[in-house]
Amino acid sequence: MSPTVDEHAATVARLLARAAGPAIDAVPVAEARGRITASDVRSGVDLPLFRNAQMDGFAVRAADVERTPVALEVAGDIPAGHVVAVRHVSGTAIRIMTGAPMPDGADAVVPVEDTELVLGRDDDLRGAVVEIRRPRRPGEYVRERGSDLRRGEVLVPAGTLLAPRHLAALAAAGVRSVPVRSRLRVGILTTGSELVTDGGPAAFGRIFDANGIALAALVEEAGAVVSSQEASDDDPATFARLLDRAVADSDLVVTSGGISRGAYEVVREVLEPRGAVVTTVAMQPGGPQATAVVDGVPVLCFPGNPVSTQVSFVVFLRGPLRDAAGLPPIGPERARLADAVHSVPGKRQFLRGRWADGVVAPVSGPGSHLVAAMARADVLIDVPADVESLRAGADVTVWTL
Amino acid sequence: MSPTVDEHAATVARLLARAAGPAIDAVPVAEARGRITASDVRSGVDLPLFRNAQMDGFAVRAADVERTPVALEVAGDIPAGHVVAVRHVSGTAIRIMTGAPMPDGADAVVPVEDTELVLGRDDDLRGAVVEIRRPRRPGEYVRERGSDLRRGEVLVPAGTLLAPRHLAALAAAGVRSVPVRSRLRVGILTTGSELVTDGGPAAFGRIFDANGIALAALVEEAGAVVSSQEASDDDPATFARLLDRAVADSDLVVTSGGISRGAYEVVREVLEPRGAVVTTVAMQPGGPQATAVVDGVPVLCFPGNPVSTQVSFVVFLRGPLRDAAGLPPIGPERARLADAVHSVPGKRQFLRGRWADGVVAPVSGPGSHLVAAMARADVLIDVPADVESLRAGADVTVWTL
Repeated sequence: MSPTVDEHAATVARLLARAAGPAIDAVPVAEARGRITASDVRSGVDLPLFRNAQMDGFAVRAADVERTPVALEVAGDIPAGHVVAVRHVSGTAIRIMTGAPMPDGADAVVPVEDTELVLGRDDDLRGAVVEIRRPRRPGEYVRERGSDLRRGEVLVPAGTLLAPRHLAALAAAGVRSVPVRSRLRVGILTTGSELVTDGGPAAFGRIFDANGIALAALVEEAGAVVSSQEASDDDPATFARLLDRAVADSDLVVTSGGISRGAYEVVREVLEPRGAVVTTVAMQPGGPQATAVVDGVPVLCFPGNPVSTQVSFVVFLRGPLRDAAGLPPIGPERARLADAVHSVPGKRQFLRGRWADGVVAPVSGPGSHLVAAMARADVLIDVPADVESLRAGADVTVWTL
Repeated sequence: MSPTVDEHAATVARLLARAAGPAIDAVPVAEARGRITASDVRSGVDLPLFRNAQMDGFAVRAADVERTPVALEVAGDIPAGHVVAVRHVSGTAIRIMTGAPMPDGADAVVPVEDTELVLGRDDDLRGAVVEIRRPRRPGEYVRERGSDLRRGEVLVPAGTLLAPRHLAALAAAGVRSVPVRSRLRVGILTTGSELVTDGGPAAFGRIFDANGIALAALVEEAGAVVSSQEASDDDPATFARLLDRAVADSDLVVTSGGISRGAYEVVREVLEPRGAVVTTVAMQPGGPQATAVVDGVPVLCFPGNPVSTQVSFVVFLRGPLRDAAGLPPIGPERARLADAVHSVPGKRQFLRGRWADGVVAPVSGPGSHLVAAMARADVLIDVPADVESLRAGADVTVWTL
């Protein structure tokens, strides 16, 4: 009757398969950090773009400096960024700066520290003569065109999480925009007439909305974007209007609240007639769950207690969103319990826990309203449905928050 | 003569101590993900805000349901968000929804599944009578006011990297803005007449600027913000003007290029008369380095080869910026080399490497122009200054990129 966590996770995965496919954005390289390449990016140029000097010094023919010291006429001066190709004449030296294009005919650079001007000055090379004090082999201190990467080769492969060094390589190759996976657009719709969402104080009986902020932050952390964020009261007409608007702008809509068995359950009331599957997953917190498809857009409905909402996200939606974004999974880990824990048989428990000295200690109780305690936790302790208690020192699975 | 990497790192640390102190921003909770709290945030309210029901069901006096089944008159109905305090009369039951305020006088909630309406209907409770089928002790399914956190207690401690669960707790307590550490404002100024920065093609002898994009992305990744980003040619007047503008907007300015021993070294030319210390650190890549203070603002000057710039950032600036932002350090790790490497004696080498099958293989050569190879790397292999070669299988320090 009650689906297990794994069964509901499979339902969610099928639902999300209906979300928009792997569309591709082209974003400027300067804004692409943290995005995932949608295809191989090949270089349109050789890197380096041209044959250039690796050191400040003098471009020579190696054959002219086989025996040193040798004095050579300084026939020119090539700063970095010099845009005219220079021809080198045997028996001369051309002063050159790191990165400047090598003159045609020269095949080595003698670093400046192995040279001395014997005629002329650094700032006036007319009639200058340089003494070369050390031989250099052909190719020494010369960076050949294409020696880093050849035109047409893959600069950044598909599926790369773009870090600064990738952006540097793309920029160096003159790439201006990069194909990246689209971010899933997620609409967020929290519900409950008790929610204060206008920034005002909370009258008796009302509470501040924590779920809108939590879901938005969780969605962004999982590599998706928040396409809309609204709060509905328990009026079905309001909820239906906000839902239709969210669906129009989103690849996926997530709601919180309004799906348990009580009265005034607005999400259930509006979505059940539209085909929603409302269920109680054998888990705590987070039992009441629902899935629907509205106008072709998947809608995932979480319960409204703030801890239930956050646990539902971590258990059911974080993994699929990270997958869709190309982010690495956050796998369950094994940990040792600092204290004994007790659980309700028949329901998989996700208790809040905190690492301390290499073991995980439970934080506060199991209540789904303990939103401050949740903030102190850094893991969920995953207690299987058939386990009623675990002793201190027991080995458990934990989910990193 | 040449400072070591550690000596220059200490110089940089002293320089950065002059950067703006730990100023505090107040940011809206919804925008605070990834920021670091600058002080303890205490709750101005009890959480829960008021005594409320943990389940949908009926609020009763435990003493009235000691013997079950027992039929009680339904004296009221409290939905979530009900803003009027209700008084419970002994011998009656009041229907209540999860999260709704407990009526005064009632001390337990009987979950709806342990009840049945024997008179009246769910949608019309006038004259209704409910049969309670199971006793409940005082306090059962009641969430006491302040049981999660009391007013005045710390909700989120100082120094917390704000994750979605912290934002949820802050929002639940009605906190609207949160004190966070200011982000260091870093101005970026790349130099070189050879740089193409206008998005156009590269004429012969010119190259695309990779350093501006790389430094901006590195700065943001390290938890700081880019306050300005400009590129200067090798004209001292242009550089001086852009530098003064960057200094005016920034807590720290980072430059690339223009500090080696050759001619046309614009950064050295402008900053040496203003007290810059220009040096050659015993490292490769990244030897030429400089530090200065301009109008009280620290200026850190990296060499201009794109790999040198990135390595300089990782070795000298990433750690201090992450510290300033309160982000966890990215410590050096130990790794085993897949292949032998060779190094220049007297200089600490930072070779590019890549993890594969649990070992680190060098990627391409040591050249500081190998920007595409740098993109394929995921670590820097740190070869000590006194080491000339390391065999395959050797244990080395690596820096994660």
